[in-house]
Amino acid sequence: MRIAVLGGGAMGSLYGGYLSRKHDVVIVDVNETLVDKINREGLVIAEPDGSSAVYHPKAAVKTEGMAPADLIIVFVKAMFSHGALSANRSLIGRDTYIMTLQNGSGHERTLLEFCDRAHVVIGTTQHNSAVTGLGEIRHGGSGLTHVGCIEGDASRLSPVAQALTECGLEADCCPNVMELIWNKMFTNVSASVLTGVLQVPLGFIAKDPNAWALCEKLVREAVAVAAGEGLVFDAEEKVSDVRAVCEKSPEGITSICADLAKGRKTEVDTISGSVVAASRRNGVPAPTHEAMVALVHAMEGKQS
Amino acid sequence: MRIAVLGGGAMGSLYGGYLSRKHDVVIVDVNETLVDKINREGLVIAEPDGSSAVYHPKAAVKTEGMAPADLIIVFVKAMFSHGALSANRSLIGRDTYIMTLQNGSGHERTLLEFCDRAHVVIGTTQHNSAVTGLGEIRHGGSGLTHVGCIEGDASRLSPVAQALTECGLEADCCPNVMELIWNKMFTNVSASVLTGVLQVPLGFIAKDPNAWALCEKLVREAVAVAAGEGLVFDAEEKVSDVRAVCEKSPEGITSICADLAKGRKTEVDTISGSVVAASRRNGVPAPTHEAMVALVHAMEGKQS
Repeated sequence: MRIAVLGGGAMGSLYGGYLSRKHDVVIVDVNETLVDKINREGLVIAEPDGSSAVYHPKAAVKTEGMAPADLIIVFVKAMFSHGALSANRSLIGRDTYIMTLQNGSGHERTLLEFCDRAHVVIGTTQHNSAVTGLGEIRHGGSGLTHVGCIEGDASRLSPVAQALTECGLEADCCPNVMELIWNKMFTNVSASVLTGVLQVPLGFIAKDPNAWALCEKLVREAVAVAAGEGLVFDAEEKVSDVRAVCEKSPEGITSICADLAKGRKTEVDTISGSVVAASRRNGVPAPTHEAMVALVHAMEGKQS
Repeated sequence: MRIAVLGGGAMGSLYGGYLSRKHDVVIVDVNETLVDKINREGLVIAEPDGSSAVYHPKAAVKTEGMAPADLIIVFVKAMFSHGALSANRSLIGRDTYIMTLQNGSGHERTLLEFCDRAHVVIGTTQHNSAVTGLGEIRHGGSGLTHVGCIEGDASRLSPVAQALTECGLEADCCPNVMELIWNKMFTNVSASVLTGVLQVPLGFIAKDPNAWALCEKLVREAVAVAAGEGLVFDAEEKVSDVRAVCEKSPEGITSICADLAKGRKTEVDTISGSVVAASRRNGVPAPTHEAMVALVHAMEGKQS
């Protein structure tokens, strides 16, 4: 398969590296130094067991004149998805699948500006990864990659799932992928966003009664909004899932907390913002999420 | 008049000092060093015109055995009102008026645990003042003190208003004092609380579009809650009042911002919290205020 991975960050490098085992892969990134390094020396992936390997996907800053890919995987930060797809339109042909495994929900709306509904692939990944140097990443946890579509039968995506699986990224075609996407989002839109606003580690959210009350409220509002989208979750179960995440990693610093501490733009619009967008579509109120989105953007604004 | 002022902070010292011009005043404070200083050397009040004067109210840590006062003015921080009144019950007789000019609303509920409805005096002050040293304050802006009651005709409080006026604290009896209290509160429950949560000066709230959107939402929610209490305000007018406050003092650091920066408890429960309490009484939703109260308490919790 001809695969293009947009974004050579931690996750893009992981998928790009692994997929290069069996496929013709190009990692597209705006960072020329990174692109040169990958093309010259390859991409180093360190595994949790201490082993490491060098992979040789291609890398490129510009893709003009390249033939369309069979599959494009968007792994840039959500706010750059539109720009990355625009800049690399030559990779998008009539038969190109465009896939997002990004955190949050609503990414399909961006993809639909570049392909039809039949070619949008949405999903979740349980892998995680961190950048440790230029062209070097550390692969953390592994797990399933679920892929699905926004119309029709998910099983027609089996070539995509198979392409991932045969490279060590075990994947399945998932009929209820939207439910999985939302399910993965509850912690992000509650505990994680609060760690950003309060600038605290995850454990604080479970420990401080006021932070926890607010966290619980965010989970319950999100569950209600999800129900308005036809996705039914048990609020008590989600509340206790989120609490478990906080208690399991009390010192954990979320990416939104780190982003805000360093004055970087966050992905809040596709995380909490996607709850607010769904709320506006389906009329189920999400005032606490609205407040969090505004606060996070105001905190981004402090730095500028 | 025999007057007791609970709390020898900036405002308690101002009122205690001024009222000692014509009345028998005792300032009650838990700080023994301050009490000794006032009793030994008096209280120094510096005026905006550069002049200053020494006043000689009495000061006391304990009031056991003292005769009831005609008027008690509560000027401790709101969260200490109940404790201060409890500790100084001997000052409260059958005919003692207990007055609050504290920021925020709902203080009458605390006062009512110590006297009947006829003896509760609520109001607002336009004076401001800052502590500059032990037993030394700087008097900032001046203006009217409005006093009113929670039942009956406000004019029966004219002896209280007169006692203030004749000492240079111009006061009137106000039939719609609750409206004035709420009116004074809109900035506190919107722009001020946001400066605390975001840790920014007042100007940021007007300048940053996300902070301002949230500020406006807080004003509108508070106006709706006030309407539920029978107090009608024009939302557009309040929004523009609040904006004017932010733009007038762009570098202004609010007390809630300073309190949170220093890890101190704030008065949020009688400011934003009083909007939430009213919302729960009258059923008009105030979810954004609820979120702010929880965030402020969580920020207080960060320090402990």
